[in-house]
Amino acid sequence: MILTAAASFPGRGGAFFSNQETFMNIQGEMIIGRQAVRGSAGSLRAYNPATQAEIEPDFGTATVDDLASACQLAEQASDAYRAMPLEQRARFLETIAEKILAIGPVLIERAAQESGLPAARLEGERGRTVNQLRLFAKVVRDGHFLEATLDAALPQRTPPRPDLRMRKIPLGPVAVFGASNFPLAFSVAGGDTASALAAGCPVVVKAHNAHLGTSELVAKAVREAAEECGMPEGVFSMLIGEGNQIGADLVGHPAIKAVGFTGSRGGGLALVRIAAARREPIPVYAEMSSINPLFLLPGALAEKGATLAPGFVDSLVLGVGQFCTNPGLVIGLAGEQLEAFTAAAAQALAAKGAGTMLTAGIHKAYVDAIEKRGGVPGLTLVARGTGVTNAEGQGCAGQAALYLCDAATFLANPALEEEIFGPASVMIACRDEAEMLAVANHLEGQLTATVHATSADLSIAGQLLPVLERKVGRILFNGFPTGVEVSHAMVHGGPFPATSDSRTTSVGATAIERFLRPVCYQDVPSELLPQELRDANPLGLARVIDGQLRVG
Amino acid sequence: MILTAAASFPGRGGAFFSNQETFMNIQGEMIIGRQAVRGSAGSLRAYNPATQAEIEPDFGTATVDDLASACQLAEQASDAYRAMPLEQRARFLETIAEKILAIGPVLIERAAQESGLPAARLEGERGRTVNQLRLFAKVVRDGHFLEATLDAALPQRTPPRPDLRMRKIPLGPVAVFGASNFPLAFSVAGGDTASALAAGCPVVVKAHNAHLGTSELVAKAVREAAEECGMPEGVFSMLIGEGNQIGADLVGHPAIKAVGFTGSRGGGLALVRIAAARREPIPVYAEMSSINPLFLLPGALAEKGATLAPGFVDSLVLGVGQFCTNPGLVIGLAGEQLEAFTAAAAQALAAKGAGTMLTAGIHKAYVDAIEKRGGVPGLTLVARGTGVTNAEGQGCAGQAALYLCDAATFLANPALEEEIFGPASVMIACRDEAEMLAVANHLEGQLTATVHATSADLSIAGQLLPVLERKVGRILFNGFPTGVEVSHAMVHGGPFPATSDSRTTSVGATAIERFLRPVCYQDVPSELLPQELRDANPLGLARVIDGQLRVG
Repeated sequence: MILTAAASFPGRGGAFFSNQETFMNIQGEMIIGRQAVRGSAGSLRAYNPATQAEIEPDFGTATVDDLASACQLAEQASDAYRAMPLEQRARFLETIAEKILAIGPVLIERAAQESGLPAARLEGERGRTVNQLRLFAKVVRDGHFLEATLDAALPQRTPPRPDLRMRKIPLGPVAVFGASNFPLAFSVAGGDTASALAAGCPVVVKAHNAHLGTSELVAKAVREAAEECGMPEGVFSMLIGEGNQIGADLVGHPAIKAVGFTGSRGGGLALVRIAAARREPIPVYAEMSSINPLFLLPGALAEKGATLAPGFVDSLVLGVGQFCTNPGLVIGLAGEQLEAFTAAAAQALAAKGAGTMLTAGIHKAYVDAIEKRGGVPGLTLVARGTGVTNAEGQGCAGQAALYLCDAATFLANPALEEEIFGPASVMIACRDEAEMLAVANHLEGQLTATVHATSADLSIAGQLLPVLERKVGRILFNGFPTGVEVSHAMVHGGPFPATSDSRTTSVGATAIERFLRPVCYQDVPSELLPQELRDANPLGLARVIDGQLRVG
Repeated sequence: MILTAAASFPGRGGAFFSNQETFMNIQGEMIIGRQAVRGSAGSLRAYNPATQAEIEPDFGTATVDDLASACQLAEQASDAYRAMPLEQRARFLETIAEKILAIGPVLIERAAQESGLPAARLEGERGRTVNQLRLFAKVVRDGHFLEATLDAALPQRTPPRPDLRMRKIPLGPVAVFGASNFPLAFSVAGGDTASALAAGCPVVVKAHNAHLGTSELVAKAVREAAEECGMPEGVFSMLIGEGNQIGADLVGHPAIKAVGFTGSRGGGLALVRIAAARREPIPVYAEMSSINPLFLLPGALAEKGATLAPGFVDSLVLGVGQFCTNPGLVIGLAGEQLEAFTAAAAQALAAKGAGTMLTAGIHKAYVDAIEKRGGVPGLTLVARGTGVTNAEGQGCAGQAALYLCDAATFLANPALEEEIFGPASVMIACRDEAEMLAVANHLEGQLTATVHATSADLSIAGQLLPVLERKVGRILFNGFPTGVEVSHAMVHGGPFPATSDSRTTSVGATAIERFLRPVCYQDVPSELLPQELRDANPLGLARVIDGQLRVG
């Protein structure tokens, strides 16, 4: 378990967590525009899944008026925010990063308490969150995302061609739903918020109930950054609420123009339905479910099957299997080499201790799903992880599980393709390459597909590749899917049900495109043109001019 | 009426139309893959709206099996088609253009019979259709649409960064619905088909029942081009069918991965609902309804109000008002100058003869809508066009209509914001600039907004601009919206209900983006990488490398 490998994580009950004062700055508040507001609709507490105890303080939940205020402020801020110079927008993103770092260790402590995740992992995640904000600052300064395009007037042509200029503008206020499994990198100031703010959209976050204190700390950091950078009130708000109604109200509010969500298939589809039923339907970017198939081609199995098995198991149990890119399906050709891989994987997995899952609800869903798998005909349990390793006893502990079946069983049983959120995976033994291709063709949309191959496998890999392209957002060779780089070429997306919109990514520089749309300016007087479309190109942008890309 | 200005249009009953033989090559057939097929589900005939008579021959309609065949062939063609060299794909588009021109005058004759549109307009539209295909051939060769992006591996970093490469791939088979009002440019081989084929997607067209013969001629041209260019069977099919079921079945077919549609709000929304209810929801690009507001700012009214009025009326009655960008709303400040403009517009409009509308259904809907307007309190009829001018008598004749009301009436009556498809427009007299801005803020999403302004109007124009940016896809100054240039900077799109997806355009080079999605390749062996992502950049593409745009 990676949990135990975190040297900087002193464990519960140590000095690291006992200091009441460190949490004194958590007040149980929301952020609405410039104000820290205590909601009065009801109250909620955070929960420590390891100790199975509630955590102080109480958080007030948003009233209908609180939600309306946040949305109206966002709407009012929208034109002012998008009109600000790109440099100021970039500085805002960088200042958010600085303010998050300035929170100090209390952020890691609180997030660890609320999520059961180890400090080392959360420190890494904080680094990633800060890097995402800085990457988008660069993207904003670069200005390529504006896709500035100019077609010169042709007054002599019959009929004359007008002067045409195009740029991308922000969609307007964006609702962001924090994810349970990345309390920093996919939450209050995570990838969705960073890319929406970079696009020029105000953001209203619905905090995830699994990390309320973490959310308040980060939301206050964003508020401070907004003040320091002279942002209009309403560029950022964060709401707290119980149950589904607040999310439905937020997505249904007319001021909201797009939605970013990471979570369950059920939750994502509910938001899609609400967004589609609005008077003005809006796009929902929901990252939902994926079982991330891993293909073990014969050459790779023969050459390195034994070393692959522990790597696969490490990827499977990383973060107690609570990664969107968790490898929940392994596909190989039946035979001795797959049997050897299976035996080695079983051995590695049996040595893995159980780990605290993010919430009691996720833990229960995992336990129930594993129980249900027990009754699937043709499915064999190959191995389970060990029980609770922590001397003190550990709440919400999820134990890894590895299953095996043949391809016919898999193809006949849609339940085996459903995501189990946690450290569970199914191995599929295929008769031959044709059956392996049939399994690939049968798959639903996925975030990733992994291929382990050597030069001996190029032929079958070449046949597999176009099938996988149709099914997934990222194809990786000879690695494991659980690391998601934040860079320019990353795609964290994929066909339904991996996401609700396969045309986009929620990680990486191009995530900004989700919150933009094109506007054309025809014969608009030069005084009224935005900077990025003026003849002199004062921002020095790369632009497409009469169909030719010109670097600024 | 522009109809009467078409010198090359000899009129019904002349030699141009009497030759039965010219239509002998219209067989009443569909195209399914490589085959011309006569549907056996039922039969349909084209209709001449001017003579109100059916036109030979009978067209057979698609059975359930015909539809399944077309979709399955498209699915089978998908990987082979997208794997073809870009040069071959570009040649295919150019060959379609050549084959359409090679049909000769019979195409214009048949389209004129079926649509009531004059030959000159249809010849222009054919030119535009051919130019669209050629523009997309250029876009394909250029390869910028692939958005090739490379992030180098950083093996020394902790953790190491893998090699990451991204490109766009086609979504898969696209269903295209021909539009009634552009029987060539937005139909069988129109903008949706051209951009989908350019993206690498096979296309299944549902022919519009208003121009069945035109559709068959063009579909056969596409089939010939596909054969000549060695395209896989199924890259293009065209189906014929009565009623809504065939469209629902097409959008619901699992092989279809995206939909292009131009038509009514009701029709577009029905397809959106069907697509969303699929097991795998798919994007629908529906261009639906727009009333294209035209703002007459005080300086412009004072300086050139008298000359603006006839220009506006010409734009309003162009194509008997059956343009998506028809100016259905005119907004000005109440006063003498607006009164003078109104008087001049009334005079110009009263001199316009009625024109044959595209179909009996469109004509009836127009007549009913005009009748309904008569009962709106506070709305005054300013002028109507004249009756039938054609000596022979003219069927389905739509007479222009211009109305006037104050802003309060408009703001209180949502029906006045509904599109009337035809030559009808409402003028709104505002008390002051604040009320003009209130009207702008109140508007639903639109394809276009037009501003007539002089240098004296820069202040109010500057206040109007950000509001219009939020509402429309194209903002034009001192012109009329009915011309839509096919170029790189064009945006023919806009917020709901103008379209179902404001993030896109259906006209211009970037229309190709609708049918693409990104895929990331992580540590994929160089032998398996697509050309556009190889180190040597064999296609000479512009690529983003480590975040820097580099021209190839």
